[in-house]
Amino acid sequence: MTLRQTFAMNLRRYRQAAGLSQEDLAHRAEIDRTYVSSLERCQYAATLDIIERLARELNVDPAELLRDPSG
Amino acid sequence: MTLRQTFAMNLRRYRQAAGLSQEDLAHRAEIDRTYVSSLERCQYAATLDIIERLARELNVDPAELLRDPSG
Repeated sequence: MTLRQTFAMNLRRYRQAAGLSQEDLAHRAEIDRTYVSSLERCQYAATLDIIERLARELNVDPAELLRDPSG
Repeated sequence: MTLRQTFAMNLRRYRQAAGLSQEDLAHRAEIDRTYVSSLERCQYAATLDIIERLARELNVDPAELLRDPSG
């Protein structure tokens, strides 16, 4: 599994656990909804700045978003 | 501390612990030496793809590079 895939899986998992739609999360993190969707489909490699904003809105440690759930 | 700063500190710490210069690490990860230097000075926001390559060459879990050492 690539790091993009790990991140995508974690992003979706934490977003859904927070009860947020992609649109909700995008609005809170002030990024485009299509970008959140693209990240969850591994189309782009998120930057540290984006990871930081998403983690803040999801109330998780940024490192958690990179953690391999199987590891 | 921003996530860029946390990453920069961890990158330098793990690189030095591995006994690698910025040039050594850049060569192994197939990225430009000046880019490694810039990341350690928080000038750019690394992407997941770059984080993945650096972590692989440093033999650390990518999540470790985002972990707040004080946390």
